[in-house]
Amino acid sequence: MGSTFGHIFRISTFGESHGGAVGVVIDGCPPRIQITAEEIQKDLDRRRPGQSKITTARGELDQCEIVSGVFEGHTIGTPICILVRNKDARASDYEPFKDVYRPSHADFTYDAKFGTRNWRGGGRSSARETIGRVAAGAIAKKILREALGTEIVAWVSRVQDLEATVDPLTVTEQQVEANIVRCPDEAVAAKMIERITEVKSEGDTIGGTVDCVARNVPSGLGDPVFDKLEADLAKAMLSLPACKSFESGSGLDGTWQRGSEHNDLFYNNEGRIATRTNRSGGIQGGISNGEPITLRAGFKPVATILQPQQTVNSSGEEVVLTPRGRHDPCVLPRAVPMVEAMVALVLCDHWLRQKAN
Amino acid sequence: MGSTFGHIFRISTFGESHGGAVGVVIDGCPPRIQITAEEIQKDLDRRRPGQSKITTARGELDQCEIVSGVFEGHTIGTPICILVRNKDARASDYEPFKDVYRPSHADFTYDAKFGTRNWRGGGRSSARETIGRVAAGAIAKKILREALGTEIVAWVSRVQDLEATVDPLTVTEQQVEANIVRCPDEAVAAKMIERITEVKSEGDTIGGTVDCVARNVPSGLGDPVFDKLEADLAKAMLSLPACKSFESGSGLDGTWQRGSEHNDLFYNNEGRIATRTNRSGGIQGGISNGEPITLRAGFKPVATILQPQQTVNSSGEEVVLTPRGRHDPCVLPRAVPMVEAMVALVLCDHWLRQKAN
Amino acid sequence: MGSTFGHIFRISTFGESHGGAVGVVIDGCPPRIQITAEEIQKDLDRRRPGQSKITTARGELDQCEIVSGVFEGHTIGTPICILVRNKDARASDYEPFKDVYRPSHADFTYDAKFGTRNWRGGGRSSARETIGRVAAGAIAKKILREALGTEIVAWVSRVQDLEATVDPLTVTEQQVEANIVRCPDEAVAAKMIERITEVKSEGDTIGGTVDCVARNVPSGLGDPVFDKLEADLAKAMLSLPACKSFESGSGLDGTWQRGSEHNDLFYNNEGRIATRTNRSGGIQGGISNGEPITLRAGFKPVATILQPQQTVNSSGEEVVLTPRGRHDPCVLPRAVPMVEAMVALVLCDHWLRQKAN
Amino acid sequence: MGSTFGHIFRISTFGESHGGAVGVVIDGCPPRIQITAEEIQKDLDRRRPGQSKITTARGELDQCEIVSGVFEGHTIGTPICILVRNKDARASDYEPFKDVYRPSHADFTYDAKFGTRNWRGGGRSSARETIGRVAAGAIAKKILREALGTEIVAWVSRVQDLEATVDPLTVTEQQVEANIVRCPDEAVAAKMIERITEVKSEGDTIGGTVDCVARNVPSGLGDPVFDKLEADLAKAMLSLPACKSFESGSGLDGTWQRGSEHNDLFYNNEGRIATRTNRSGGIQGGISNGEPITLRAGFKPVATILQPQQTVNSSGEEVVLTPRGRHDPCVLPRAVPMVEAMVALVLCDHWLRQKAN
Repeated sequence: MGSTFGHIFRISTFGESHGGAVGVVIDGCPPRIQITAEEIQKDLDRRRPGQSKITTARGELDQCEIVSGVFEGHTIGTPICILVRNKDARASDYEPFKDVYRPSHADFTYDAKFGTRNWRGGGRSSARETIGRVAAGAIAKKILREALGTEIVAWVSRVQDLEATVDPLTVTEQQVEANIVRCPDEAVAAKMIERITEVKSEGDTIGGTVDCVARNVPSGLGDPVFDKLEADLAKAMLSLPACKSFESGSGLDGTWQRGSEHNDLFYNNEGRIATRTNRSGGIQGGISNGEPITLRAGFKPVATILQPQQTVNSSGEEVVLTPRGRHDPCVLPRAVPMVEAMVALVLCDHWLRQKAN
Repeated sequence: MGSTFGHIFRISTFGESHGGAVGVVIDGCPPRIQITAEEIQKDLDRRRPGQSKITTARGELDQCEIVSGVFEGHTIGTPICILVRNKDARASDYEPFKDVYRPSHADFTYDAKFGTRNWRGGGRSSARETIGRVAAGAIAKKILREALGTEIVAWVSRVQDLEATVDPLTVTEQQVEANIVRCPDEAVAAKMIERITEVKSEGDTIGGTVDCVARNVPSGLGDPVFDKLEADLAKAMLSLPACKSFESGSGLDGTWQRGSEHNDLFYNNEGRIATRTNRSGGIQGGISNGEPITLRAGFKPVATILQPQQTVNSSGEEVVLTPRGRHDPCVLPRAVPMVEAMVALVLCDHWLRQKAN
Repeated sequence: MGSTFGHIFRISTFGESHGGAVGVVIDGCPPRIQITAEEIQKDLDRRRPGQSKITTARGELDQCEIVSGVFEGHTIGTPICILVRNKDARASDYEPFKDVYRPSHADFTYDAKFGTRNWRGGGRSSARETIGRVAAGAIAKKILREALGTEIVAWVSRVQDLEATVDPLTVTEQQVEANIVRCPDEAVAAKMIERITEVKSEGDTIGGTVDCVARNVPSGLGDPVFDKLEADLAKAMLSLPACKSFESGSGLDGTWQRGSEHNDLFYNNEGRIATRTNRSGGIQGGISNGEPITLRAGFKPVATILQPQQTVNSSGEEVVLTPRGRHDPCVLPRAVPMVEAMVALVLCDHWLRQKAN
Repeated sequence: MGSTFGHIFRISTFGESHGGAVGVVIDGCPPRIQITAEEIQKDLDRRRPGQSKITTARGELDQCEIVSGVFEGHTIGTPICILVRNKDARASDYEPFKDVYRPSHADFTYDAKFGTRNWRGGGRSSARETIGRVAAGAIAKKILREALGTEIVAWVSRVQDLEATVDPLTVTEQQVEANIVRCPDEAVAAKMIERITEVKSEGDTIGGTVDCVARNVPSGLGDPVFDKLEADLAKAMLSLPACKSFESGSGLDGTWQRGSEHNDLFYNNEGRIATRTNRSGGIQGGISNGEPITLRAGFKPVATILQPQQTVNSSGEEVVLTPRGRHDPCVLPRAVPMVEAMVALVLCDHWLRQKAN
């Protein structure tokens, strides 16, 4: 019962990697929003496999169909179902190790929880599930952009030790999309691509971090004490496959500072109350303060590697696994639209909540 | 509407720093659990102000009353209300700056959100709110301990650059409680206390990290895809005052490794499927795998400092704030029982959810 | 986990009949609403026992304390906790039959569900729990009245066969409060009082119906398909003790008519689209249409009678129960403020939901 | 945001009458339940239009596809999406009155709420939405039947004044399905069919009641105080199109009785604590007591009639509407599987909730 997210703008995703389809139902989307399948497709294309030489070769076009909730080009306040059929499913790739628990995958835990599992491509634990999120996020992003002028931009900020220098106040989606690794620091981006290519050739994987900024977010979003904006953003990030860390604003760096260094001093910026620094990352007491919201999500290296590994099967017998199949050497470039989608879903939900305040 | 946490074991906290009382209502607590006010008080005492020279001097005893839900010494399945009266409230301390927005506090954002605020001691944004969480967490911890043998231990793992060396497999609450900074590495603990004392004397504050381990958690807890165990734990941590980061298992360190280094290999440990390493932190695909759950929460330096700071008042006029009042130079020692409580609440909720599976 | 009601204006009640206290936490109440304990007390006094010769003699004053969420006379957007101490609890009345299942009470089912129960006065199943609802409803009524001019009036429409004639378009609270049975048809009211007095003298009980109208409700409230306004109203009514039926608009009478008789024809009433009749009871397709919302709730006779009854004890032995204790011969007069409260809670929640639309 | 129902066994329906498809996502269905599209289809066939001469002529086969959540013939604990394509949509039927508010339909209220509406066949307010409920209900019924032996049987108990005599203790689905009006009292059923045929020939519609019994429900289901079993059943019924009343157990009849007549006396029935009568309808204090659960839902006459009616259009102009299109002269026969489905959904959810207790 964990496939629903959001309180007012509420999404329920469904579908497994190699089942018939994946998708999402959005309940609570405001009416009279112009939306087309093409707009949604744009973000799905940023997420889809096979988009570049540094992503998995699985050849899914991930074409979406709006099944309900949109009439004569706009939303009508009823649930929006968006469906994407699985096309390039090769279940046979997984047949040889259907009883084997792949290390650091969810095979064992799904079995422990449900007493059964869909062994084809990880089933529900596959990143294909995020198609529904990205589709819903595309709508949330549009709503926020049109109603508030909110811009949400995510980018790959670090691959292993390769760290980019990016200004969250000015970075644009175009800059992010200018290269296949989605890092707007071109020099570092080139090194990242090289590193990923090299690691891929060794059948190995690597991780790193994605940063995200949301600009033009009104003050007042977030519901203390449990639904603080950063609490919901943290949950949103950690719900993404392979995400293992979250930082808000100054994050871990801030824990090294003194209060006298870390505090953001208020001033009057031509009539708007603003802060001179933004170590709070746009959120104070769990509520947005009008400054840009900044956050960072850390992703571990993908568990699927093309090297032999010791493991056990469902009978508890120790076996050696030599995986086949297509996989991502580094999840980060495809995680960028997922992070943007989740941030948009959280902000859209909290914006609607604030309207009810 | 953000004061409720949990799906089955569901808590609602209430109360402000200087209002009549703070407390919690727990809905969904299983029946027939033996519980006394004394057991709850034990954790409240670990959280309360004035407990040592490195915490705030506010002299609250934080005595709890069980108002409902417990009959003849045990829970009866009805909502449990626990109440703590505010005693040592000195609202007058705050009167001089009732219209001033304290830097990096929630004064401005509460005003922006609600169009009004309780200026006495931060009102709802005060850490006093966590009394309700710690009280509920004491019950959750007991339930888990008696039903599953689960042990939840948190400790201060780092203050600024002072980092402790602690073994999560063996650390005990007694070791944590052996000193006032709640760091089981005695040598480092002494330095931490010295550092906090020094910073306090300068009217400044510092931050750091709290680590937590949950041992003897059965496999199968956590509900993909949004209510993954680490997603709910992340939300739980980031909902705590001053928390700005969350790491699960290997956390940020893991993002520097390769998949071939990071993967946890399964083996058959005398009939139990186990992993040889635990970089996953006991959670795979959002579901517990039976290994110890490990996490880290980062806390920024407390915003209240006793040094003059530039800021604005609610009319937008720039003013200098020279705070008075009692405050914590470092939130970490008191955050330890809060972290334990939130972890217990998440695990107890997911354990009950799993029973319904 | 069933003690929470509402999605945005969300209440959680707590407390048992003979425990320390009963009360409510309201999460999601809008800020800046002027509210005093006296205003809440007014409705609690209409609900309290011992208010007249036709109610139970239990002498509770039910004085409420606002524990949190109100500051300087107005709500501040944080959870509002309201507490009422139990004073005139006579647990000893119940001691003789602590192991006996009283017929048509909840003794057996609570034991079946929880494996334990608070045998003092029905514990949580007592109508004392509705104190929290009535307190929260007083606030909801005020919000609706001030924001929308909404008037919610309930009255006793039938006691057994004694049926009142009342015009829902004009009936006022003053008319309802003009007599102790809360029936605005004075002639019938006198007969009802006589009947209840007679039945009471025989140690017996009777039931009937309560009608309610909500005038000046804007069109557009209600969320198809499951949270239809009448679905939430039905749930609200059936959650009240002793309520066994619900009718919306024409209700059961409407099921005897033809569509050509039953349909409400639209017309243009000086610029407002209105209906010439209101068999829909102000709700069409689960959404309010601007006409008065009308509903009826049926209450069974109170289960506590002062006559010997065959039953069993918790060991399954058949015993004869001759109850003592104070009880209501007819729940209807005290149900009137409960019905108003629940209707107000539903409407207030849906009004806030609609603001987020 | 009202398209989700249930707390643990949680369904979200989607789709409009003349959109691409209708369907449901079930989140929280237990794993390892054998289920096929054919089993679901059986109940969809009982619900579908065009099944007999007394239902609408719309020729939908309503063939369902299980899109996700079922693998190798059984559920796997992940969300189950079931899809039914709309085939025989004749949007042109509705084009002439796309701006006209049909009396007692939801045209006006959807416009008032959303500022737009899908005018084709009522859009979301059409009874086609219940396809998702019936599909989910088929699974819930199977779960309850296999785990608990629960039998849920609904039937048409009254059409206008034509009232059937049926024994809830023994009535079977076969008896219900023996005729097209779904009334197991054959003599009355014949009259009902005659009446409906006659009314249909006059372009008019009629209403009545559906009764439902659930046998072999364990004691202990239901969560006081708001999620009482009858509160959730009431909400479930009133969320069905055209439903305007709900009665639990003795219902309205019980409100005429005295407590001494109405109380259900307990006795020891060969080791099981049982009641000699069942006026409580199997529910006491909101919790099941092990006796058959009995309820009644009243349905108003369908709003679509083939007679000219006065109304207004969206500009507020008064117009005469002479509808075309296919419609049901009496919703009751098709409501039977809907009622069963909703009862099954409520019971299945509460059974899973009780497992978590």
